[in-house]
Amino acid sequence: MARIITRVESGAADAADLVGALYPSTGRGYTVGLTGSPGAAKSSITGPLTSLLRAGAEQVAVPAIEPSSPFTGGAILGDRVRMQGHATDDGVFIRSMASRGHLGGLSLAAPQAVRVMDAAGYPWIILETVGVGQVEVDVAGAADTTVVVVTPGWGDSVQANKAGLFEVGDVFVVNKADREGAATSARDLEQMLDLSVLGDWRPPVLATSATTGEGIDDLLDAVGRHRSYQEGAGLLEEKRRRRTATEVRRIVAERLRRRVSDLTDDATLDALVDDVAARRLDPYAAADKILADAGL
Amino acid sequence: MARIITRVESGAADAADLVGALYPSTGRGYTVGLTGSPGAAKSSITGPLTSLLRAGAEQVAVPAIEPSSPFTGGAILGDRVRMQGHATDDGVFIRSMASRGHLGGLSLAAPQAVRVMDAAGYPWIILETVGVGQVEVDVAGAADTTVVVVTPGWGDSVQANKAGLFEVGDVFVVNKADREGAATSARDLEQMLDLSVLGDWRPPVLATSATTGEGIDDLLDAVGRHRSYQEGAGLLEEKRRRRTATEVRRIVAERLRRRVSDLTDDATLDALVDDVAARRLDPYAAADKILADAGL
Repeated sequence: MARIITRVESGAADAADLVGALYPSTGRGYTVGLTGSPGAAKSSITGPLTSLLRAGAEQVAVPAIEPSSPFTGGAILGDRVRMQGHATDDGVFIRSMASRGHLGGLSLAAPQAVRVMDAAGYPWIILETVGVGQVEVDVAGAADTTVVVVTPGWGDSVQANKAGLFEVGDVFVVNKADREGAATSARDLEQMLDLSVLGDWRPPVLATSATTGEGIDDLLDAVGRHRSYQEGAGLLEEKRRRRTATEVRRIVAERLRRRVSDLTDDATLDALVDDVAARRLDPYAAADKILADAGL
Repeated sequence: MARIITRVESGAADAADLVGALYPSTGRGYTVGLTGSPGAAKSSITGPLTSLLRAGAEQVAVPAIEPSSPFTGGAILGDRVRMQGHATDDGVFIRSMASRGHLGGLSLAAPQAVRVMDAAGYPWIILETVGVGQVEVDVAGAADTTVVVVTPGWGDSVQANKAGLFEVGDVFVVNKADREGAATSARDLEQMLDLSVLGDWRPPVLATSATTGEGIDDLLDAVGRHRSYQEGAGLLEEKRRRRTATEVRRIVAERLRRRVSDLTDDATLDALVDDVAARRLDPYAAADKILADAGL
């Protein structure tokens, strides 16, 4: 399984064939995206949430998006160590993915990893992302239920809003609820929800504490309610359709990009740039020549 | 001229043809990029700099990147009014460009506007950008000489460095030199230059005051020296070659993006997504079908 994930997420030559082979077995797993403010200790939620699901004998897969930056690697590693309580449990599959280095980008690679876990029969897939870059928010926001985790202090409404977190949240969690400012953060979020145009689902705002384990059962309950709501209203199917459309667009874009990438390397461009510098070609004509050479 | 600019910068259907037609007449204009910290009153430098060039009977074109945000619009308008001393001067062409709403983005649109001004025979093109977003820094940094303007207080080395301004600066200007902190800002910049790996050109750090007009002649002199340095060392040609290569890559990317959006409009995708949802097709096969149907 790990080897297949490596091949599909890296966009290896046979990635499409592998996805084709396992695709008929997908669609049963339910994905929960966990994202949030830096320092919100999302991993400290993934661990207890996994334990709770395991207590109910549910299998759990965790594709965890790691930052590529060496500067933040340490803190993440610490969280990851906590997850290793599950390392010897066959019912838990943990898989780290670097946030860089995937052909077509993480937004295309992450769904492929999730797909393998889904096909393997994991009913719960907790997609944990680090950081609040646009890509991480995109990835977490493409889950069936997206949980946005904020910390007291940071997690004020303005910051969450800026990062685009507010829009993607189906459930909000104020983590480290024992810290000062937790109640204020929760109230800020509720006020923003008051001002938002919402559908029939109003995202609940929960409090959790990783140290005491408080609130994790509420979180799982909220995820379950959101799932039921979406399934009952036919919204889950619709959400997955939109996700599929986005994925197909990304694959098409990636295929076209690869067609021309050889043709825009420095050496190939160099000859064209000579022509452009000498005014024999203009930049648009040079671009057209590259596309024509690629058969596009 | 204004109409041609509108068409090329908007990426209209005939933009490439227009660029092709005027491209042979380009390459004589010299571009000066003005960027810097918010509140550095770059426009208050553009005005006197233009006056000084006009005193030497040089024609000046000013493509000014306006913020799209309504929140900062007011302050900019004030600066722009100051530039209107040149509004009745046939030797000065001022052109505002919004920082959003261009197909392919501002980084592709701005060079097209500059190109038209260059082809029209303006020997000086002062590319003024507002804000220090990555795009604005890219645009200003792609000029023949880039002037980075900082204000006392804001303009400390750390901030300028964070915004990527330090790398692109060929000349640094501490504006509002009569304000407290101006000497400190200048010293910070000099110290950062001491710590930098520089080529044969060490960016000078100048002081200007828009209210007294102090330092503008020094600035024009520094730009002239940087120009001579680059021309003498063959660096201007090399810089422009790199710029061309980047532009060709951007045009290719933009063409591909448009191609993808044509290929994957909602109607086309809708039928395919049905098949994918029913597991009759996988996402990669759906993408391949789109490409095959387009003969790609």
